[in-house]
Amino acid sequence: MKYSDLKFGIMEKGKRNLITDVAGVTVGHCTLSDGGVQTGVTAIIPHQGDVFHDKCPAAAHVVNGFGKSAGLIQIQELGNIETPLLLTNTLSVGDAFSACVKYMVKRNPGIGREECSVNPVILECNDGFLNDIQALSVKDEHVFKALESAGEDFALGAVGGGRGMSCYNLKGGIGSASRVFDYNGKRYTLGALVMTNFGTLCDLTVCGERVGARLSAKAEEAKGSCIMVIATDAPLSSRQLTRVTHRAQSGLARTGAVTEGGSGEVVVAFTTANRMKMYEPFWQPTLLNDNFMESVFRAATECVEESIIRSMLEAETVVGFRGHKRTALSELI
Amino acid sequence: MKYSDLKFGIMEKGKRNLITDVAGVTVGHCTLSDGGVQTGVTAIIPHQGDVFHDKCPAAAHVVNGFGKSAGLIQIQELGNIETPLLLTNTLSVGDAFSACVKYMVKRNPGIGREECSVNPVILECNDGFLNDIQALSVKDEHVFKALESAGEDFALGAVGGGRGMSCYNLKGGIGSASRVFDYNGKRYTLGALVMTNFGTLCDLTVCGERVGARLSAKAEEAKGSCIMVIATDAPLSSRQLTRVTHRAQSGLARTGAVTEGGSGEVVVAFTTANRMKMYEPFWQPTLLNDNFMESVFRAATECVEESIIRSMLEAETVVGFRGHKRTALSELI
Amino acid sequence: MKYSDLKFGIMEKGKRNLITDVAGVTVGHCTLSDGGVQTGVTAIIPHQGDVFHDKCPAAAHVVNGFGKSAGLIQIQELGNIETPLLLTNTLSVGDAFSACVKYMVKRNPGIGREECSVNPVILECNDGFLNDIQALSVKDEHVFKALESAGEDFALGAVGGGRGMSCYNLKGGIGSASRVFDYNGKRYTLGALVMTNFGTLCDLTVCGERVGARLSAKAEEAKGSCIMVIATDAPLSSRQLTRVTHRAQSGLARTGAVTEGGSGEVVVAFTTANRMKMYEPFWQPTLLNDNFMESVFRAATECVEESIIRSMLEAETVVGFRGHKRTALSELI
Amino acid sequence: MKYSDLKFGIMEKGKRNLITDVAGVTVGHCTLSDGGVQTGVTAIIPHQGDVFHDKCPAAAHVVNGFGKSAGLIQIQELGNIETPLLLTNTLSVGDAFSACVKYMVKRNPGIGREECSVNPVILECNDGFLNDIQALSVKDEHVFKALESAGEDFALGAVGGGRGMSCYNLKGGIGSASRVFDYNGKRYTLGALVMTNFGTLCDLTVCGERVGARLSAKAEEAKGSCIMVIATDAPLSSRQLTRVTHRAQSGLARTGAVTEGGSGEVVVAFTTANRMKMYEPFWQPTLLNDNFMESVFRAATECVEESIIRSMLEAETVVGFRGHKRTALSELI
Repeated sequence: MKYSDLKFGIMEKGKRNLITDVAGVTVGHCTLSDGGVQTGVTAIIPHQGDVFHDKCPAAAHVVNGFGKSAGLIQIQELGNIETPLLLTNTLSVGDAFSACVKYMVKRNPGIGREECSVNPVILECNDGFLNDIQALSVKDEHVFKALESAGEDFALGAVGGGRGMSCYNLKGGIGSASRVFDYNGKRYTLGALVMTNFGTLCDLTVCGERVGARLSAKAEEAKGSCIMVIATDAPLSSRQLTRVTHRAQSGLARTGAVTEGGSGEVVVAFTTANRMKMYEPFWQPTLLNDNFMESVFRAATECVEESIIRSMLEAETVVGFRGHKRTALSELI
Repeated sequence: MKYSDLKFGIMEKGKRNLITDVAGVTVGHCTLSDGGVQTGVTAIIPHQGDVFHDKCPAAAHVVNGFGKSAGLIQIQELGNIETPLLLTNTLSVGDAFSACVKYMVKRNPGIGREECSVNPVILECNDGFLNDIQALSVKDEHVFKALESAGEDFALGAVGGGRGMSCYNLKGGIGSASRVFDYNGKRYTLGALVMTNFGTLCDLTVCGERVGARLSAKAEEAKGSCIMVIATDAPLSSRQLTRVTHRAQSGLARTGAVTEGGSGEVVVAFTTANRMKMYEPFWQPTLLNDNFMESVFRAATECVEESIIRSMLEAETVVGFRGHKRTALSELI
Repeated sequence: MKYSDLKFGIMEKGKRNLITDVAGVTVGHCTLSDGGVQTGVTAIIPHQGDVFHDKCPAAAHVVNGFGKSAGLIQIQELGNIETPLLLTNTLSVGDAFSACVKYMVKRNPGIGREECSVNPVILECNDGFLNDIQALSVKDEHVFKALESAGEDFALGAVGGGRGMSCYNLKGGIGSASRVFDYNGKRYTLGALVMTNFGTLCDLTVCGERVGARLSAKAEEAKGSCIMVIATDAPLSSRQLTRVTHRAQSGLARTGAVTEGGSGEVVVAFTTANRMKMYEPFWQPTLLNDNFMESVFRAATECVEESIIRSMLEAETVVGFRGHKRTALSELI
Repeated sequence: MKYSDLKFGIMEKGKRNLITDVAGVTVGHCTLSDGGVQTGVTAIIPHQGDVFHDKCPAAAHVVNGFGKSAGLIQIQELGNIETPLLLTNTLSVGDAFSACVKYMVKRNPGIGREECSVNPVILECNDGFLNDIQALSVKDEHVFKALESAGEDFALGAVGGGRGMSCYNLKGGIGSASRVFDYNGKRYTLGALVMTNFGTLCDLTVCGERVGARLSAKAEEAKGSCIMVIATDAPLSSRQLTRVTHRAQSGLARTGAVTEGGSGEVVVAFTTANRMKMYEPFWQPTLLNDNFMESVFRAATECVEESIIRSMLEAETVVGFRGHKRTALSELI
């Protein structure tokens, strides 16, 4: 099974087939790999301007809330994001939060003084099988490095926040994909980036093929999480982005997932199409009619499905904490 | 493709492979089929006692709220159901509500007088393609007939509330399935009943096989809905039942669904394991630990998937309003 | 205590001090008062055009969901209303739903045929103390009469849907109020209409004065509901209108309410400022910045508070079903 | 106006009139007060056993989500808390999260290794007016000190996490209150602890008296937050605790609050009555019938109201960052 032979859905892919096909979005990693320390940070920067003052409309949805992600309630209330999104391990949410505060304060010295406070969005999965998660290895410098290295091209697999993650009892990590579609004479792009750390092997399904059932008959206990971030340049309101986040679960299910109870499945979606400027009393976003969202929903479903499988196929085998090992899917098929 | 050859998931089926494998649950239909009138009512009775006074713990979840189902907010607040569940066409929700009130008042004359009011739960899909939905054909007598005919054995396919429904551009209707599992030395059952009226043919997936893509390459516009009812005798709280309802979307997605924006995807789940008695100041339910819900989640996913495909495979071709026709899946494969 | 002497909050009132101060909004009643039948219908028409095709952005919020209101899930998903809002008694929700379908189909013959279905919004309280609620007295003709009689001026108190309602163990009914405020050189209006049927006398608070405590020391059992509808011409998104609905509870609490568990407290808010046209692929609403919503929030709080007290002060004493009596507040103070 | 003369509501107070009247609950502070640093941590320990393995049923509710509190989504999914609750300033949420992880790992070395991860619950308000919030002054040692000093007696006012908070443009801080009630021959206690940092002076209302209107006629801009924690020994499910959290807004509104848009109003409620043990497959909680919750709702409303006013009356005047000053309410009345 070669990734290049696989066909996920029916829509056209974007140029790079990455979330960064949405213009302005960049992604960076900092990967920590040293014996029992197998973890890291992945940063998604929503646009290249002043995100704090020119916010992106956004939405957050919790499929299964066995998770510790921070920043979701403000996304849901105000319908926007005002910082980069950071993906890391569960117990490092606090340190990533503090590092994000420092990063934002440096760029916006009025935060918490002349201006209001800031809402760091930290998304997480528990990499404690491969990583010594109690070591709290993620420090300010790692967060800054992930942010500073962000670009349009970025690695997939066992990198960044995905370094220590396990998916379907194999090696998981960071995956991404994109789709393009035309509407009313204009071309739009939607992309996803996922951090995969969930599932039991017997369920793994690749493009409809029940690959996992061949490799294992047994439903093992699976605790984990899946972080799904969706970016688009389609002009959607935060309410409509909430609708998009709900489709992520369908993409997840296409890979075979039952969505275990111990899994933190969290979705964040944002659009680069309209900016909520902090001090402008009114704004006039152009918004898509809800009756014409089918391509957006389909793109979200396909991108999440492909991103998950890609996170596995692009990952290498990793041996980490206490000699625990997760095998790359590419070695088995 | 014969239904009996298909294998949905890995769990053991219940005796009848119907929602009525959950002891005490019965289902009845009233089918209206006369030219342009192709509609009906399906009733699910949660237990054979006094449902109004001995309520079942329950939960409701809206996957996509383009729908008119009634009764959900009280399920979410109080965590129970106190009436049978009625499934019918969209515009007949009002008449089914009134019929349910009359049915309940007859059995509980104190409703709205010495006792509080009652919460009818009416679930719906829009069958306007095959059925003259403006005719509001569902009357009190049809609701009563569905309720009175309820039993452990019941028909599937183009019957009851499912008579006029369309699924994946073919004939939809009523489907059901069940699963059994052991836990801590006891056997539990979970069953689903669905009313299917959603999807575009190119997406139809049967046990992982992309059947629809062979039959149609085009993503047609699809507006519809899918009602998913889950019953179990596993001892779950209403919060836990809410968790179960979230897994219905995964079962839906396994059949290929993108969950279109114009679709009302609504899930109701209830347990027969503990009763909330109206006038007892305290109760002592036995409840399952959240860490041991994987079999419940898997059963819900498998039952919804199988119920949807079964609703199609058991349905006959129907010609209805204005000569509109929906072909049975069994005729094509 | 004269209503004209009372001062609710600090903002300026609208011209009529009614929800109809929001241009385009009209309200009509049909009152049924005959012995044990003390009930009715109140209709709120959001604008005078084609509401089905030119929808108003809207939001719905459930403070306490012991209620049977219909239509809320679609408001929450699509962020709009597409019919008039109907307020009536609990058990008549079904008949009001059917009547609304007929009213809408007459004006829009494509509903459920060439066009999609329609989402009636029916809001309710249980008037079973004063009204023979089992009689299901509200018929199509009463709904039509309420709709056809809608105008900018309308009665308050024991009229329409509020005819049989009880509030703080006294006579409740229909109340309304409005506020105006300037922002960025433009004047905006926000109005509320409530149907009051909740509370225990000892809690009644009028403009901060604990009137109820003087009249009764005892917390009686109180089951009821409060329907709160908020209209505005401020340019708000459905997400922002959701934020406004949350402030209704603060207005309610200012009148002393504890929000009993058996009470269905439901809030619907809509704006007339932007229309969601059914077939236009894009729209460009002007929207207020979230940082400048304080006047909107304050107006909503003040209008709900005043509307509730006004519903009581404008009501007459009513004797109804089985000789049950609710005394007018105006007779006691 | 003396606090001891004020009467909030009609219910009987607990022995200490503190949240610690709920047996097993303890509270500790660490206060930082040094020039521009005016901040701290308040810790609420839900019971004196092993909270990680013997969890308390709990609920979380967001009244207005302009806030950065961490840990809420897992409370909502699993219906419990498994750590102490920490209250601090907005930008220190991350450092408090990390400190909580260390505290929990020390007591439960299996976290993230043999056992699952842990869900720190960190609640916050923005004290940036009085405190140099960018200094991120809260360190591990301060969190540990708050936790280690926890007891049944604790200080109120400008202490702990409340040190730098402002309420109604005056000095806010930490407040608490409790109520007792009998039900079915047993006595129950409910207590609240709040951290107050919201509101505009003109709205301040003390026991129905519009104190703020006398002191200021102007609605100033008010951004802030109010954290409301409710503890009880009444046997409630997490769904019922959610219902309780909704009543906190009514208590808040009784003090005059409009609930500004820039305010993060977050409520967490828990019960000590039943424990969710991590590894027991089943449990048999005794639960109160929903029809008998009025005393619980009333107690929650009264406790939140009184706690807020008490946080102000017990606070001293504080001068902090850049010489900013908040005057104690006790100096004005």
